[in-house]
Amino acid sequence: MYYDLTIVQFTKMFSNLREILNKAAAHAEAKKFDVNVLLNSRLAPDQFNFIRQIQITCDTAKLGVARLTGKTDTVPVHADTETTLAELQARIQSVQDYLAGFSAADFANADSIKVTNPRWEGKHLLGYDFLMHHVIPNFYFHFTTAYAILRHNGVDLGKKDYLGAMPYKQ
Amino acid sequence: MYYDLTIVQFTKMFSNLREILNKAAAHAEAKKFDVNVLLNSRLAPDQFNFIRQIQITCDTAKLGVARLTGKTDTVPVHADTETTLAELQARIQSVQDYLAGFSAADFANADSIKVTNPRWEGKHLLGYDFLMHHVIPNFYFHFTTAYAILRHNGVDLGKKDYLGAMPYKQ
Repeated sequence: MYYDLTIVQFTKMFSNLREILNKAAAHAEAKKFDVNVLLNSRLAPDQFNFIRQIQITCDTAKLGVARLTGKTDTVPVHADTETTLAELQARIQSVQDYLAGFSAADFANADSIKVTNPRWEGKHLLGYDFLMHHVIPNFYFHFTTAYAILRHNGVDLGKKDYLGAMPYKQ
Repeated sequence: MYYDLTIVQFTKMFSNLREILNKAAAHAEAKKFDVNVLLNSRLAPDQFNFIRQIQITCDTAKLGVARLTGKTDTVPVHADTETTLAELQARIQSVQDYLAGFSAADFANADSIKVTNPRWEGKHLLGYDFLMHHVIPNFYFHFTTAYAILRHNGVDLGKKDYLGAMPYKQ
């Protein structure tokens, strides 16, 4: 289930996010304003802007998977220097490419792996708790906040853009 | 894992949400404005307001669990008539009470249960797909949107308010 909750779901959500970025670009073009205005928008003066929300969404997925699989050596490095929509798309693509390299078997030890963080003062989270309490809530938090920034600024988005295609059965 | 992804995690997030509502009330009191202004706020004219975001967060959890366990007969009914913070707190409480009645064994058949919806035109989702593609993304979406509405209106909230306590190990 680790694989489905991370690789499958994040890959799908990134695909949805890329379409949302395309809609933001189309909206800016139709309204004849610079799309960078959207990229630098935020919902509160002391909240991260759109670019940073996308960067953290990417990092939550990338580092979450790296830590849950123990494969931290192959994780792509990003310098957080994106300033354009094309650069954000490229960053998302690089995370999608990274996610594509995993199989369910890579998560075999995820339950009991110890996840550390310099900010956690020597404490750790077990992989299972890390997934439940950190990776999943954070991923959807930053994705939704990015969506909300665009929605607040008039981009014509709806729930379907966020959720993407549903695997309905007949 | 169904139990942890729904009952455990939603119960925790609802607890966080109730504290966030308390902070919204304290903020309104300190600034001497009617907290109902926050309850009726939204991020875009054609987006649901704060009250509706909370109602949907509640329903996503409640109906998600009811459908995944097949126990749709005991699900609490809510008329969506809340207009005050106290009523929203009571609604969240009633969902927390409902969630408290489940055990992991109740999800034994969740993988293959068929979830239907009048809007899905006769199609269905398997329980497993319903959890991954619908319940989890929607729950965090509406929670985060409610958070974002408060954040946008100056309520002093941070990521810790959203995530709540972490089960760190020494």
